[in-house]
Amino acid sequence: MEKILIKDIEKHIGNEVKLQGWIRNYRKASSKLRFIIFRDGSGHIQAVAFKPELGEEKFDIVKKLTIESSVELIGIPNKHPKNEGVFEFQLTDINIVDLAPEFPISKKEHGPDFLLSHRHLWLRSPKQNALMKIRHTIYFAICNYLNDNDFYRFDSPILTPNASEGTTTLFEVPYFDQGNAYLSQSGQLYLEAGIMSLGRVYDFGPVFRAEKSKTRKHLTEFWMMDAEAAFVEHAENMEIQENLIRFVIQTVINKNRKELEILERDIEQLQKADAPFKKMSHREAIDLLKSKGVEIGYGDDFGAAEEELLTADSDVPLFIDRWPKEIKSFYMKRDPDDENIVLGSDMIAPEGFGEIIGGSQREDDHDLLLERIKKENYDIKDYQWFLDLRKFGSVPHSGFGIGLERLIQWMSGVRHIREVIPFPRMIHRIYP
Amino acid sequence: MEKILIKDIEKHIGNEVKLQGWIRNYRKASSKLRFIIFRDGSGHIQAVAFKPELGEEKFDIVKKLTIESSVELIGIPNKHPKNEGVFEFQLTDINIVDLAPEFPISKKEHGPDFLLSHRHLWLRSPKQNALMKIRHTIYFAICNYLNDNDFYRFDSPILTPNASEGTTTLFEVPYFDQGNAYLSQSGQLYLEAGIMSLGRVYDFGPVFRAEKSKTRKHLTEFWMMDAEAAFVEHAENMEIQENLIRFVIQTVINKNRKELEILERDIEQLQKADAPFKKMSHREAIDLLKSKGVEIGYGDDFGAAEEELLTADSDVPLFIDRWPKEIKSFYMKRDPDDENIVLGSDMIAPEGFGEIIGGSQREDDHDLLLERIKKENYDIKDYQWFLDLRKFGSVPHSGFGIGLERLIQWMSGVRHIREVIPFPRMIHRIYP
Repeated sequence: MEKILIKDIEKHIGNEVKLQGWIRNYRKASSKLRFIIFRDGSGHIQAVAFKPELGEEKFDIVKKLTIESSVELIGIPNKHPKNEGVFEFQLTDINIVDLAPEFPISKKEHGPDFLLSHRHLWLRSPKQNALMKIRHTIYFAICNYLNDNDFYRFDSPILTPNASEGTTTLFEVPYFDQGNAYLSQSGQLYLEAGIMSLGRVYDFGPVFRAEKSKTRKHLTEFWMMDAEAAFVEHAENMEIQENLIRFVIQTVINKNRKELEILERDIEQLQKADAPFKKMSHREAIDLLKSKGVEIGYGDDFGAAEEELLTADSDVPLFIDRWPKEIKSFYMKRDPDDENIVLGSDMIAPEGFGEIIGGSQREDDHDLLLERIKKENYDIKDYQWFLDLRKFGSVPHSGFGIGLERLIQWMSGVRHIREVIPFPRMIHRIYP
Repeated sequence: MEKILIKDIEKHIGNEVKLQGWIRNYRKASSKLRFIIFRDGSGHIQAVAFKPELGEEKFDIVKKLTIESSVELIGIPNKHPKNEGVFEFQLTDINIVDLAPEFPISKKEHGPDFLLSHRHLWLRSPKQNALMKIRHTIYFAICNYLNDNDFYRFDSPILTPNASEGTTTLFEVPYFDQGNAYLSQSGQLYLEAGIMSLGRVYDFGPVFRAEKSKTRKHLTEFWMMDAEAAFVEHAENMEIQENLIRFVIQTVINKNRKELEILERDIEQLQKADAPFKKMSHREAIDLLKSKGVEIGYGDDFGAAEEELLTADSDVPLFIDRWPKEIKSFYMKRDPDDENIVLGSDMIAPEGFGEIIGGSQREDDHDLLLERIKKENYDIKDYQWFLDLRKFGSVPHSGFGIGLERLIQWMSGVRHIREVIPFPRMIHRIYP
């Protein structure tokens, strides 16, 4: 007998097939009739156990079922008599694989600590399952967009001798007799070497921040996509970002409508975000905040509250560009017309989901970069190779980094970052 | 004027276009004629600088060119008069972006230490560029095969409290007030939680081994794809592996013929590997080795020399399965007919490229697994969540792990693992 997945059930209407998976729930309708909500990873379906059809012995097995028991169901898929696109499964046989004791996660509200301690089981819930599927979609939407736009994947190292942005939030790793290595916070610097061989490159892997913040927006380990392109300048850099994010929105809506519904995501709101993005300079953003009564200066950075205010009236993401040099990284290129401004941009998601991309054109002049490395008091020895990239055939180039989890949060409308990664790592949490 | 990539040049025959990239080499043909080998990441092309056409001033610029200088070339692409599929670029204008001083890597042989210290520049060489493109292809061939076969990407954590296989080769990371965390050696255990929600899952990211081995086959940081599937048993597990690897072979041959030629890879040999794989049990493998005069016992593992002997007469990979339990991991399921044998398999590549996949059916019985964890003297506390997976709806399941770099080595015919990852990490090497 053919073994099939629930997602393919429509192709097997009227034919006896086998399903393998788990009991999500069950319900007694009468002494002769029970309904089983059954899931197999690809989807879920209602199985109908009718005693006269199933026989006494097998019906007794159905009566023993518990939530999260694993089973094999044999039966015939049918279209639901009323609901379009819904299917039912007429049970003809059933085998229990493993009968589960009482499942720790029930319908009642559990606190976040309890759920995180049971993350290995919590992942089975409909919402967590939906989030993992959306994560999968977004990961490959990003890759596909970049692959179709002449970028090559170029895996940057995790163990690094130097830090791209300061050293206070670095995880240290004793490395044989080489002293300490550090866990990467971004592959950007390495990608800048990659473009000199491949033109356009990106990495997409875990990065680390030993941050003591304990907010709903922080993880110590999260996934980042860094892209870098030769001969791309500030304006084109933002264009690539906008096109990429709009492609992600379209892909998620196309592929994960079912999951978005499980998460009760407002899909119309997502659709509205697929329109030309807004742009303003940092200076204009400060002026706008001032006009809304915020006390802020032209040299200040934005926090979550300011980001929300700036995007409050917007259905689409907002680029903020042309930042004061003091609050951005040493490697950003300066505006040719204003030495105090860098050609960097942040992309802020609407609906209060905060920054999802940071990018910039990079300094491509060897001597200016050397000067800035000295000014930051970094060890020149660590950056010698990075300076070499400006010595041997330097080119104008730009890049950006997407925080995968932030983007998943926005797409799926989930406020807590801990739900959008399989096993979240936080300051007090490294198990399971 | 349109800015194009070399890979798209055929579409622009006869039209003036702009190319941006680097000088790979140049050659003086006469006082009026120079040839430039130019590359832009997407490919390379010969540009022809002819003084009467280019004019004196621009021809003087051509004369100044150095290897690895960055330039903009303006000109007209033409078909090569003799060679099919080869194009030339008639230069009409040139702008130097950045004139490079003498490039450290020349045509002469450099030692591996010199090249590794200049990895950021070495990456530009034709062979290294080709290897990175093949790496890209293989990464996505693996993902595409799995995605098309109902697997979901499921990113397992890097920072872990426990080790899947022993603790002697773990990198330690001080983790706030939680004591030490360890860098993951495999995501397998976490994937086993993932299948209970998604059915079939995989991860594909960096893993770490603090191994003091200094061989051409070892890195301390490398990329691994771990796949895991519910309701898949030993034989089907090997079937998935074989189909996946054959798909990778086909994809690399289709997409990277040019790169394989640059690497002087014997493509016919690769094509031969796309045929049914060989299988033997560990016991049969020992017998075969004995018959070849090797002194080895039925409880012994294989080293590189034995792997080479076993595949010496084979064009296709070899599965060795049914291993003695003592030399394999605690989580592997035992053969129902022989308690001393585990249902694990290794896949050995032909041509001496060694093991590329390890896999097994997993122990799904709670009490048997508990017993083995105790026997290994692991802390039960660390494995409680892993045991839970056998308590709440356990299912038969199997999985396998592919070492990405080993697979790239085989596909591209490269003997040193350090060349197939952008920035290799080894015991004495963490820079650049």
